[in-house]
Amino acid sequence: MTSTKYAIGVDFGTESGRAVLVDIQNGDEIATAVHLYHNGVIDERLPESNIRLDPDWALQDPNDYLEVFKQTIPAVMTKSGVSVDDVIGLGIDFTACTMLPTKADGTPLCFLPQWRSNPHAWVKLWKHHAAQPEANKLNAIAREKGFSFLDRYGNKISSEWFVPKVWQILDEAPEIYAAADRFLEAADWVIWQLTGVETRNSCTAGYKAIWSKREGFPSNEFYKALDPRLEHFIDEKMTRNITPLGAKAGGLSAQAAAWTGLKPGIAVAVANVDAHVSVPATTVVEPGRMVIIMGTSNCHMVLSEKEQVVPGMCGYVEDGIIPGFFGYEAGQSCVGDHFAWFVENCVPVSYQQEAESLGISIHALLEQKATALKPGESGLIALDWWNGNRSVLVDVDLTGVMLGMTLLTKPEEMYRALIEATAYGTRVIVDTFNQYGVAVNEIIGTGGMPDHNHLFMQIYADVTGKAVKVGAAKQTPAVGSAMFGAVAAGSAAGGYNSILAAAGKMARLREDEVYQPDPQAHAVYNRLFAEYQHLHDYFGRGGNDVMKRLKALKAEIITGKAE
Amino acid sequence: MTSTKYAIGVDFGTESGRAVLVDIQNGDEIATAVHLYHNGVIDERLPESNIRLDPDWALQDPNDYLEVFKQTIPAVMTKSGVSVDDVIGLGIDFTACTMLPTKADGTPLCFLPQWRSNPHAWVKLWKHHAAQPEANKLNAIAREKGFSFLDRYGNKISSEWFVPKVWQILDEAPEIYAAADRFLEAADWVIWQLTGVETRNSCTAGYKAIWSKREGFPSNEFYKALDPRLEHFIDEKMTRNITPLGAKAGGLSAQAAAWTGLKPGIAVAVANVDAHVSVPATTVVEPGRMVIIMGTSNCHMVLSEKEQVVPGMCGYVEDGIIPGFFGYEAGQSCVGDHFAWFVENCVPVSYQQEAESLGISIHALLEQKATALKPGESGLIALDWWNGNRSVLVDVDLTGVMLGMTLLTKPEEMYRALIEATAYGTRVIVDTFNQYGVAVNEIIGTGGMPDHNHLFMQIYADVTGKAVKVGAAKQTPAVGSAMFGAVAAGSAAGGYNSILAAAGKMARLREDEVYQPDPQAHAVYNRLFAEYQHLHDYFGRGGNDVMKRLKALKAEIITGKAE
Repeated sequence: MTSTKYAIGVDFGTESGRAVLVDIQNGDEIATAVHLYHNGVIDERLPESNIRLDPDWALQDPNDYLEVFKQTIPAVMTKSGVSVDDVIGLGIDFTACTMLPTKADGTPLCFLPQWRSNPHAWVKLWKHHAAQPEANKLNAIAREKGFSFLDRYGNKISSEWFVPKVWQILDEAPEIYAAADRFLEAADWVIWQLTGVETRNSCTAGYKAIWSKREGFPSNEFYKALDPRLEHFIDEKMTRNITPLGAKAGGLSAQAAAWTGLKPGIAVAVANVDAHVSVPATTVVEPGRMVIIMGTSNCHMVLSEKEQVVPGMCGYVEDGIIPGFFGYEAGQSCVGDHFAWFVENCVPVSYQQEAESLGISIHALLEQKATALKPGESGLIALDWWNGNRSVLVDVDLTGVMLGMTLLTKPEEMYRALIEATAYGTRVIVDTFNQYGVAVNEIIGTGGMPDHNHLFMQIYADVTGKAVKVGAAKQTPAVGSAMFGAVAAGSAAGGYNSILAAAGKMARLREDEVYQPDPQAHAVYNRLFAEYQHLHDYFGRGGNDVMKRLKALKAEIITGKAE
Repeated sequence: MTSTKYAIGVDFGTESGRAVLVDIQNGDEIATAVHLYHNGVIDERLPESNIRLDPDWALQDPNDYLEVFKQTIPAVMTKSGVSVDDVIGLGIDFTACTMLPTKADGTPLCFLPQWRSNPHAWVKLWKHHAAQPEANKLNAIAREKGFSFLDRYGNKISSEWFVPKVWQILDEAPEIYAAADRFLEAADWVIWQLTGVETRNSCTAGYKAIWSKREGFPSNEFYKALDPRLEHFIDEKMTRNITPLGAKAGGLSAQAAAWTGLKPGIAVAVANVDAHVSVPATTVVEPGRMVIIMGTSNCHMVLSEKEQVVPGMCGYVEDGIIPGFFGYEAGQSCVGDHFAWFVENCVPVSYQQEAESLGISIHALLEQKATALKPGESGLIALDWWNGNRSVLVDVDLTGVMLGMTLLTKPEEMYRALIEATAYGTRVIVDTFNQYGVAVNEIIGTGGMPDHNHLFMQIYADVTGKAVKVGAAKQTPAVGSAMFGAVAAGSAAGGYNSILAAAGKMARLREDEVYQPDPQAHAVYNRLFAEYQHLHDYFGRGGNDVMKRLKALKAEIITGKAE
């Protein structure tokens, strides 16, 4: 009898990284360990310095990522008591686009004393929003010159993505651009650190760096049109060699084996993205079933056999999630963040006291009170744009609206209106996919929300009219990464030869937790959704650009100059 | 040398009544006493019973008004040490339209055991909003049949006014309608109790009961068109004998003298309304100067020599405020109420703790933090319709909006946005008056706001671009009532022969407190006001009737039936 085999998935989040040791026979999560990044999100001043960052900046320290390997992998091995001989593979997933400049040997520029005090030498986190001017210029140029790749990305490249971030470095710190031999996703950088091999995964290349399997990167003409200095950007600072998902990046290096206590040479999968790796981890390896990562923001993913241009989506990438399918992605930039904002800024003392006397959290109290309300009872409707709109409007300059308040409006009504608003936002996405030929028949939720807020889940079912199911893994992305680790190892080593095979064994849904739409609630929500759509189009599609004008005025007041 | 003479003004508010003893030589407030109504605002169940009231109901107990006389007048006499021989007159002001059904001798129906358990037998407070169906029918009929009186009232009769309230009684409790010999304003009822003489003052008749000096009441045809049973309403239950402001209603009766300790026979002025009596009390006896009562709601009053139809105003009445002028009135139904709602529902624990540690109120903390913001800095804009819109849209079914929120939006920014929204609402009124030939060159504020919120006052100056001055009296309406008491007494008794003469001696502004508009802030507010107007017209004039649809849906959900 062969012994049980295990794979480790490491999930790099915004504030921390976590490792999960997974039984590859059944997906059981045997042990988990979390490491909080020492420098976390760097958005006020550079570490060890007084250098202040402008608003909209968000950086990270690559050393924090290495610490995750050093702390969490030994911890899960110790906790589980599993033998390192039985760990056959390792996979990772990361936030994206989270990118950095390095030297040719992979050394981050921010590790070098010469560049350490330059903010552009550090990792630009996914939510670094200071490259908006470059994104705007890029979109204008691509549109003007008719570069067709825009069609694949909802007609707009986000300021969060790779090229605007690189271009910002060139614009603001040409010396950093010049000093960088490589620009790459932090996802790929950590794999490089584990294996000694530089790879570029097809997921981030496709979703964040404008690469496609059929067309590759945009032509040099495009980069030249952005800035003559960028003409040879791909060949000088990137690579055209993109590795498909499910491939092995390399074997664990001796150095990384020393960091982690794992055996040198075990299979390390090419990097992946936290959201995308969750799709097979929640059983989805076929079209028609949308996976939504429901957390501080929502990320929506669905597979299709066909290539379709769906307006306003974040992008679609052939083989970008599961080999053999076009993987479509959409997103909402503010979901759990709405509720966190609301609890921090809008919940009165009396509610805090009530929650304390009941011994429950304020979120739980609000959920309890909001659950007692019927759809439509509050008279409120909101637009969920506190952090702009990612899909389908792709406009970071949109802002929040709440409408319908009276002197009797209660906090739980506003809280519920915010949940509903995010559900309407998801329905816009679902309806748009269906309308453009990418079928969405059911929804699978994962992330923080399914565990914490049943009302949220039921409202999503009632608003969309679709059953909402829930992934069974406690740490979905880490399990997905472990699945890719098992695939990288291959069946010869006791793993799997495809992600479909791995998903068949390792992925599960919660059988006892399916949110079915209530027909009566759905009928009411259809009426409310019509109101949402009307306001959505009025404020979001040029009916009244008041949000942009107010933002421009605000910038003018704060900076003291007209734009 | 003759001794100093005094008059007493009694101001009946929503929650309490107060008496002020005033020196008629200079308007000095010598002594004040307040009596909280025992039954207050009756909006959940009838006193001494389990009879529940529907939402939108608001009743009062007339006995509470008599208690005000019995408690507060002896109190101010005792406090002041003034001799009753030197008190020459008494005036009162009241909320309006606050009305009740009585028997022919003035006994309120709710005092009679037979009717006491019928809610319609009680006083309907100004903010009783349950007569909306009758107001809607009345407006439709008046419009359809072309009754021109609508022009005088912004083309709409409010559900708060006299005829809708009477008609609701007839609709829902015809037995009460039949049992009532008289319907009258509580203002006139308390004067009747003081003097034994039934009078009807021209102010409430004009502003609330569709009477005008030139045309009298609408014709019997109009009432018949509402309901055949109302055809002879005026002659059966009212009177066509309307007494002008400044007149003496009668002498204090022996019974009222016993209640109050004052001398029988002293002059009692005809009743007046709290807002209107504040106009001469803040020195305004001429056109061009708008008085705004700034409290839970705003009431705007301005005089003009000319008769002008100004769309969307609450009404204009010849001699309705100051004899010889048309008195124009407009209003905002929710001002201080916004801030009370906000503090109760939207201010987080951390702010409460900060206020406590600073030893200041939460309102004061919010004002402090909001004062540190510049106009336009928050990126927020709100429509101040948490309690509908009185002027210029005259629509109770409008609701609140806030727009521009981000994840960085702070409570003080929302608080400031609410203040600004009410200031924009006032500017719409000011601009509309000026546009239609009723000049508004400066603003005089009175009510609770000027004392409590300097930021509020400065924002009103900055938004309107007009100097905002403040009445000097601590209890403006009561001083105004005392002025009318002094006029009722006449110069022969040591008082005055006209309200102009009384105002010349008894009314003052605060000399050291004038809010001048800041030109830079005004320029920014001009841009924000343009956004307000755009949203105001979109949501308020049929561009998108989402507020009405949400309200209708809410009613449908709560009642279980479609409208």
